[in-house]
Amino acid sequence: MNQAIKHMMQDIGMRAREASRAMARASSEQKNQALLHIAQLIRERTNDIQKINQLDVARAQANGQDAAFIDRLTMTPKTIESMALGLEQIVSLTDPIGQMTPMQVQASGIELGQMRVPLGVIGIIYESRPNVTIDAAALCLKSGNAVILRGGSEAIDSNTLLAQLIQEGLDAAHLPMDAVQVVTTTDRAAVGEMITMTQYIDVIVPRGGKSLIARLMAEARVPMIKHLDGICHTYIDVDADIAMAIKVCDNAKTQRYAPCNAMETLLVNAAIAPQVLPQLCRIYQAKGVELRVDALTRETLETAGLSNLVNATEEDWQTEYLAPILSIKTVADMDEAMAHIEQYGSKHTDAIITNNAIQANRFLREVDSASVMVNASTRFADGFEYGLGAEIGISNDKLHARGPVGLDGLTSLKYIVKGHGEIRG
Amino acid sequence: MNQAIKHMMQDIGMRAREASRAMARASSEQKNQALLHIAQLIRERTNDIQKINQLDVARAQANGQDAAFIDRLTMTPKTIESMALGLEQIVSLTDPIGQMTPMQVQASGIELGQMRVPLGVIGIIYESRPNVTIDAAALCLKSGNAVILRGGSEAIDSNTLLAQLIQEGLDAAHLPMDAVQVVTTTDRAAVGEMITMTQYIDVIVPRGGKSLIARLMAEARVPMIKHLDGICHTYIDVDADIAMAIKVCDNAKTQRYAPCNAMETLLVNAAIAPQVLPQLCRIYQAKGVELRVDALTRETLETAGLSNLVNATEEDWQTEYLAPILSIKTVADMDEAMAHIEQYGSKHTDAIITNNAIQANRFLREVDSASVMVNASTRFADGFEYGLGAEIGISNDKLHARGPVGLDGLTSLKYIVKGHGEIRG
Repeated sequence: MNQAIKHMMQDIGMRAREASRAMARASSEQKNQALLHIAQLIRERTNDIQKINQLDVARAQANGQDAAFIDRLTMTPKTIESMALGLEQIVSLTDPIGQMTPMQVQASGIELGQMRVPLGVIGIIYESRPNVTIDAAALCLKSGNAVILRGGSEAIDSNTLLAQLIQEGLDAAHLPMDAVQVVTTTDRAAVGEMITMTQYIDVIVPRGGKSLIARLMAEARVPMIKHLDGICHTYIDVDADIAMAIKVCDNAKTQRYAPCNAMETLLVNAAIAPQVLPQLCRIYQAKGVELRVDALTRETLETAGLSNLVNATEEDWQTEYLAPILSIKTVADMDEAMAHIEQYGSKHTDAIITNNAIQANRFLREVDSASVMVNASTRFADGFEYGLGAEIGISNDKLHARGPVGLDGLTSLKYIVKGHGEIRG
Repeated sequence: MNQAIKHMMQDIGMRAREASRAMARASSEQKNQALLHIAQLIRERTNDIQKINQLDVARAQANGQDAAFIDRLTMTPKTIESMALGLEQIVSLTDPIGQMTPMQVQASGIELGQMRVPLGVIGIIYESRPNVTIDAAALCLKSGNAVILRGGSEAIDSNTLLAQLIQEGLDAAHLPMDAVQVVTTTDRAAVGEMITMTQYIDVIVPRGGKSLIARLMAEARVPMIKHLDGICHTYIDVDADIAMAIKVCDNAKTQRYAPCNAMETLLVNAAIAPQVLPQLCRIYQAKGVELRVDALTRETLETAGLSNLVNATEEDWQTEYLAPILSIKTVADMDEAMAHIEQYGSKHTDAIITNNAIQANRFLREVDSASVMVNASTRFADGFEYGLGAEIGISNDKLHARGPVGLDGLTSLKYIVKGHGEIRG
């Protein structure tokens, strides 16, 4: 470990910890004032932001990054305005901090309740989307936390400027500027220090691709709110409404290919497969989706005259494509479908299409995923669609926050006891 | 890593994971039937249990273990009966599994709720109190989890027999016997494997002294529900009721010395110190409590004629004595008291004695501990006193469960979506 980096990170950590105390005490008004001020600054400095962002973009182009990468990195007046709007939306959310459960009198006479409090210091590690700097910082601030941001090195100039605007907004609201700090070194050792400095960081939220998350998981000592894979399934039950199955499964796969809640594997009951698969797969093929199928599915589809099918391999069932590729398996019954999900799923989001309430309830109860759905597109697994108002990420861990994580996931509950001189006997 | 141990632990883990699926589906009736059957077996086999336990006790005596250790290890008809009663108490608790939050219709039309589900597989690592085998297993079973128990090697014969009784009870209720497994090797490598096999164990609950927890924390990859220290403070405010302060602070320190929620440091406002400290410290000294004091406290006490005071060192403020020793500091105001708690506390349980509602509310809000109390003994920080009905441990982490952890802390919430064919636009 590079000692200079270590010292720099420890210093950032210490200052974040200190700032987190003031943030925990900050009123909703103060926090909202800061967020609105940041929104205003972002709008006022749209030109500056674009100019600085061009430095990052030019460097990325010179380094031969691909078009998708450049697209995620580039800030336009439209993306800048949407950051400002995002801030205003977070202002409109209810502040969770200080919320109390009802106080309950216990046998001893003490009154007991729980108060919602910030986690403390949150570390965000992300790739090269500068808008994450604003989104993630705003959610952490609104929930009374301090935050340390470590974005991709390719966005370093954009992120540094955005952090300055955030700090200006904090200062205007008389909140500590250290409540949001950007790690300005691009040395990877900084990340290694962040994910292990448990004394200064309470939780890490990684935002990025699978390789980033896998790397962090191998080394982190600080707990993380994260998911590694989104291998989402839809099972079309024998009692499915066929028109609904086609509409929902089309949407789950093709509405967008890249999100983690897009369907990657379709499971179909053998008894209904001939009625639903040909029509559905024609839609997929018309949209350019490659179909990787098991033998039974191939038989059903070829009988109906479809071609251009790829044989699914063991690896396909384990793959999050994030692309116009779908694996399809025909199963004998719901038990086989649930066993497949248990074996290959990533505990993210899985759905059943059925009109049979008993089957639906068994599926809801027994499938061990963060979101389990009946008769809906897996694409709904999302903080906004769930009414959380915003989302710092989606967790498929079972501890703390599970599924889409909003403001509450960035808080904790502490016990409050009000006594009248009670002692323990 | 010893390969034989590794294989043995992986096999235990795999079987636990498999059993956890059946446990997640088990009805409350089945789980309660198993627990009642275990209670019955324990009562019927009291003599056998004592006989086997004597093997452990004799070995511990031969190894020169001290009286306190032998006491914790020894099972008497009374402690055996209290295990059976404990099981019956857990039967009477409401089963958390399957509980649903109200379903809420979202903007898209989907209905959203959360269902309480088991964590999966829980690992318990504990020292030589065989009753933990029954208590911990019962809480894990009731909450629909499978459990892997690794007790102290000194209690191996007792634990192995108790595990057999538990498995007999599971079998009688048609639940998988692998839902409770005891690690029968006393090789420490087994613990190393347990705390890193993230694919088979969802959470580790360590029960034992600080050295055990510290060792596990250094190496664990599986998340833990735990606390390391219980350095609990009581601050006597200038607006305290003096008689109440004396009664509560006496209780917080002397009712029992060993529990983690016993007070270790007393903070007193300088303006009220002369009225409260002499009387309170005479009680402590009469009970044989050693007092380690700062200069101001010494002055107050000596002026009042007390002697036999030890000068507190920096180390004292950081020490969880778990013994008849108390450190005392006189502070200028509540801010100094809260700064002391922030610097030296362990975020476990801290209390203020005051009749001033504004001070009380500031203390409750700003002190960052799992339990924060007004006018009550820190000894109340306990699952039973908090009405949880039972306690697997006390957590001072901020993620997942904080403070005393009951059945709910051994569960998670998953999102349930009921749609009617909704797709995302």
